[in-house]
Amino acid sequence: MMDLLPEEARKRNYVLDTCRKVFERYGFKPLETPIVEELGLLTKKGSAGEEIEKEIYSFKDKSDRELGLRFDLTVPLARVVAGNSAMRKPFKRYQFGKVYRYDKPGEKRYREFTQADVDIVGSNSILCEFEVLQISADVCKELGFNFYIKINSRKLLESIAFACSIKKERIEDCFRCIDKLDKIGWDGVKKELKANGIPLSICEILQEKDLGKLEKFLKEKNASLDGFNEVKQLLELVKKEGLEKFVKLDLSLARGLAYYTGMVFEVIAQGPSIAGGGRYDNLIELYGGQKTPAVGISFGVDRIMDCLEKKMQVEAQVIVIPLKKEFELKAFEFARGLRKENINTEFPLIERSISKNLEYADKEAIPFAVVLGEKEFKEKEFSLKNMESGKETKFKFSEIKKLKELIESK
Amino acid sequence: MMDLLPEEARKRNYVLDTCRKVFERYGFKPLETPIVEELGLLTKKGSAGEEIEKEIYSFKDKSDRELGLRFDLTVPLARVVAGNSAMRKPFKRYQFGKVYRYDKPGEKRYREFTQADVDIVGSNSILCEFEVLQISADVCKELGFNFYIKINSRKLLESIAFACSIKKERIEDCFRCIDKLDKIGWDGVKKELKANGIPLSICEILQEKDLGKLEKFLKEKNASLDGFNEVKQLLELVKKEGLEKFVKLDLSLARGLAYYTGMVFEVIAQGPSIAGGGRYDNLIELYGGQKTPAVGISFGVDRIMDCLEKKMQVEAQVIVIPLKKEFELKAFEFARGLRKENINTEFPLIERSISKNLEYADKEAIPFAVVLGEKEFKEKEFSLKNMESGKETKFKFSEIKKLKELIESK
Repeated sequence: MMDLLPEEARKRNYVLDTCRKVFERYGFKPLETPIVEELGLLTKKGSAGEEIEKEIYSFKDKSDRELGLRFDLTVPLARVVAGNSAMRKPFKRYQFGKVYRYDKPGEKRYREFTQADVDIVGSNSILCEFEVLQISADVCKELGFNFYIKINSRKLLESIAFACSIKKERIEDCFRCIDKLDKIGWDGVKKELKANGIPLSICEILQEKDLGKLEKFLKEKNASLDGFNEVKQLLELVKKEGLEKFVKLDLSLARGLAYYTGMVFEVIAQGPSIAGGGRYDNLIELYGGQKTPAVGISFGVDRIMDCLEKKMQVEAQVIVIPLKKEFELKAFEFARGLRKENINTEFPLIERSISKNLEYADKEAIPFAVVLGEKEFKEKEFSLKNMESGKETKFKFSEIKKLKELIESK
Repeated sequence: MMDLLPEEARKRNYVLDTCRKVFERYGFKPLETPIVEELGLLTKKGSAGEEIEKEIYSFKDKSDRELGLRFDLTVPLARVVAGNSAMRKPFKRYQFGKVYRYDKPGEKRYREFTQADVDIVGSNSILCEFEVLQISADVCKELGFNFYIKINSRKLLESIAFACSIKKERIEDCFRCIDKLDKIGWDGVKKELKANGIPLSICEILQEKDLGKLEKFLKEKNASLDGFNEVKQLLELVKKEGLEKFVKLDLSLARGLAYYTGMVFEVIAQGPSIAGGGRYDNLIELYGGQKTPAVGISFGVDRIMDCLEKKMQVEAQVIVIPLKKEFELKAFEFARGLRKENINTEFPLIERSISKNLEYADKEAIPFAVVLGEKEFKEKEFSLKNMESGKETKFKFSEIKKLKELIESK
């Protein structure tokens, strides 16, 4: 688990602000749930799957209740929806929050990480999947990322598995092997499939790029075309919108979590995967609610922060420096005046020389500085120093609005 | 622990946004720390005090390390500062986060709650205390609250205790009794003091309103005037700024936490206490850092939410409704067009009648609606319906910017 010092915390704020702006643009509403959940809820069979279950931080509270730290934001959403049957549908919610997985931490892998989720609950429409793709593209564009989105369909994968004579009860194992492709390559996947007694023929089909050939194969084997048609429909919508260069069908995309039932997505930006999601039509029922379709995506905020190259602005727009201790109080009042005009203003609060103060401003990347002494207070005039260019601009004490314009035009 | 459904989560966003705006106006920088800390850190003697120690959620992780959920944001700050000696001072940081206390939950008392903290680390100046008061006033004003701020000084309390012949080693107990005043009244405090063998004469002094008389009393008893002078100095600054109607000296304010060393504050808004803080000059040293002065305040976000009467705006500014299923895709594209102009747009995503859709918009408090059918797509013109007034305004498909102006002028 990690501290985020200001430079990093700023990035986090920026990523969350950007996500929120995009999510709200699509009419999503905020939800907050506790970080601590009942352990039984988190380990419910059919939700996370065994791999994650092993990674849950669990403990007993002082009244001996078994609790755990949430490992994602989807399970708590399912609990909330299941428990609020009167909720108007579709329920489009966003949530930001920390989640916990006790796995081997490595470089850039933490046990506490932040997710930013959007989910649409209560609609079967393929437009939901389309909206999730649009949102993913909007987030990446706002962040200035090079990106593409892998899509696939669990239903299509099931048809392919059926066509390859893989037994229904082995499909979950089969997906789990395929899901490791990025880590272990096709040879590794084949080894795992073999160890699990699953026919290897599926590997060839999953590398098929030609949709026509895939359709023909499924028809020949009398497999369902439902998943195939869904994928086709979504790709058509994507093309109509002009997003086709950002969206790729990838038949090897399975996604680890057990609860997905339909389309699955993964967003690749600047190299790594920064988001993943899909449709999960059974999860809410599993948590005691009515059968309710749902689809969503989860952005990995820490991964996005690592990809972010944009330089963050610091909070303070200007520092007000008293020339000597005797001007401290008057300079502080002046700073208060700027703050009243909503100019973010830093004030030293400790005694140090002008040069030390300017050095501080420089190191902290505060863009402007004002030094105030006898002359300034007498003439009611001061210079605003641009810390980067060194350029000074004169203002009267009465011209704070003009000062604000200059600062904001930077 | 509580879920926050959209209506409440919106309030939380609004409170945090408001705090952040004010905090950044004063040049504070963000910091993020994990929710889980090492237990030894949280229970360190001299930090929280026994009362809170009993309330820590503690557990062992899978490698048998003793961990706990943080109970405030000040102890983690002290840890961060102690571990980063190269940090430039003063370090002014803000942090928002959930904290945990396993006490008896009651109405409006939760075991998981959110704090919004500002702290200034590395300065002895009384201007720090003054800034904390200004920030508190700004937050309350932005939220539209009726408020006042109680202030007191631990140093002054110590002088008073000395003047009342209370032994040094009993002062902590004495403060703890006084701190219960709001709950148990003066009679209760006297009873507790008596039970602790502490002279009751202090109660009379703590109710003194006349600063002159207090000063005279301290002088007569040869008690230190340091705390008294600090309070006087701060009250003068407050008066100069015109904040005197919001700031009251309250000699009975002690604040529960053991780590305070100087001025203490409590903000009362719309009735309850919504924030508290003070100076804690020994805490960072306690966590292994250099002796570093610090002062800060913590806003109780949940309490503020409870006080908030302002009606929150919903995220969606407009809902786009297809007249019939056949216009769904075109209406969805239209909605996408609005979203591209940064208009927050809702789209039904499930099939239902116009009247059901308008009813939904009404219940969800979406301010505007557009219904699109054959006529609209043919004439490339549509009506924007104000859901409150019922008034309709016509726009051409090409006039989205004009539409945006109307929506935003609402």
